Amino acid sequence: MNLILLDDRDFISADRVRLQDDRCRHILRVLGAKPGDSLVCGKKNAKMGTGLIVSIDRQSIEMTVHLEHDPPAPLPVTLVLALPRPKMLKRILQSLASLGVKEIFLINSRRVERSFWGSGVLSDSDIQRHLELGLCQARDTLVPRVHLKRFFSPFVKEELPELSRNKKKILAHPQAQSFCPVSLNSDAVLVIGPEGGFIDLEVQTLVDQGFKPMTMGTRILRVETAVTALVSRLFS
Amino acid sequence: MNLILLDDRDFISADRVRLQDDRCRHILRVLGAKPGDSLVCGKKNAKMGTGLIVSIDRQSIEMTVHLEHDPPAPLPVTLVLALPRPKMLKRILQSLASLGVKEIFLINSRRVERSFWGSGVLSDSDIQRHLELGLCQARDTLVPRVHLKRFFSPFVKEELPELSRNKKKILAHPQAQSFCPVSLNSDAVLVIGPEGGFIDLEVQTLVDQGFKPMTMGTRILRVETAVTALVSRLFS
Repeated sequence: MNLILLDDRDFISADRVRLQDDRCRHILRVLGAKPGDSLVCGKKNAKMGTGLIVSIDRQSIEMTVHLEHDPPAPLPVTLVLALPRPKMLKRILQSLASLGVKEIFLINSRRVERSFWGSGVLSDSDIQRHLELGLCQARDTLVPRVHLKRFFSPFVKEELPELSRNKKKILAHPQAQSFCPVSLNSDAVLVIGPEGGFIDLEVQTLVDQGFKPMTMGTRILRVETAVTALVSRLFS
Repeated sequence: MNLILLDDRDFISADRVRLQDDRCRHILRVLGAKPGDSLVCGKKNAKMGTGLIVSIDRQSIEMTVHLEHDPPAPLPVTLVLALPRPKMLKRILQSLASLGVKEIFLINSRRVERSFWGSGVLSDSDIQRHLELGLCQARDTLVPRVHLKRFFSPFVKEELPELSRNKKKILAHPQAQSFCPVSLNSDAVLVIGPEGGFIDLEVQTLVDQGFKPMTMGTRILRVETAVTALVSRLFS
């Protein structure tokens, strides 16, 4: 944890927080902090700064906090991702949060196993937990929004056009002829398929909505690796 | 598996292979292949092409293979990485192999837990297995070389100067002033520290050897994410 993420409930006065949960244990056992030590803190969806430890007992830590500067700028990208297998999804949510992606749509595709939609990882609390791990890793406070879209066609045909209006529309596709841009650094919607790729009909449906298939080269990457590699080269 | 990786022992004649192991089970159960089907194949450290299934029985598959084209070009990078925790190392080896990195040095650092060096993941057979998974994923046949360097100073002071001669020397360092180049696409040695970073003395030792600390921004990424993000933007 490179940042202690605070929320409203932690504040016992305007500039003072009391922590009693996992964060408290982390500060004591992993960071080995003592009274007088200063830690990087941030308030969820708000400013960042430092927390000065004023008291520690077995069950709680109190800090006075000074939250003065903005979190790092979000990346101007909306990511649309075919729902990955649950174990990989956990890591992807953490990575995306740490990279600065703030809008994430998890969608269905023919090659998404139906059982994935029943996974506990898709519960609000699990999603939040993995996102917050990514934020604490990267020192950011802006919690990404994750949207679950169980039906491919209605989402792509009815919602995606509005979501992608006036934005660069990129469909990651290893077999495409065009190369994915580098350092795009402007508004984009990036669509990434499941392991094995979107089926032809799905690719065509996306193309019909203005998405352009683009490749990073002949290498076929695992979804987890592809997500980081694409985001990193688009926004660099 | 997007490619069936073959080695000398599989060949029963110049253009015919017999498979009897996990690859055989994968071809039957996951790919559901039948006689007459054609699969992407490649010979370890040699050419790629196709294999035509000529016979299948319960224990083995025979294919006639035509290996005619070269594997994708390696990335011109040598990666020097502080040994990550074993579970993460497995995934990193797979990612690196799939991204096209061919020279990997795993080194010690003050913040590398000593127990990591005793992990079974560092056995030759485990390393090979994870590398080969990455190659099969990405459709490549050139097996990366992994070197274990148990002592930081002798490696950095005595071996690294020769390894990095006439190459761009990059030390990934979130707190650096300079930004990591994008689309470098020329010979480079990239050094990445452990979770928590190299200690100051280690950074100085690397700087003394001509390595320049460079950042991707204020976000601190997990090593696993940082490796893919850096390689992807340097070679894009």
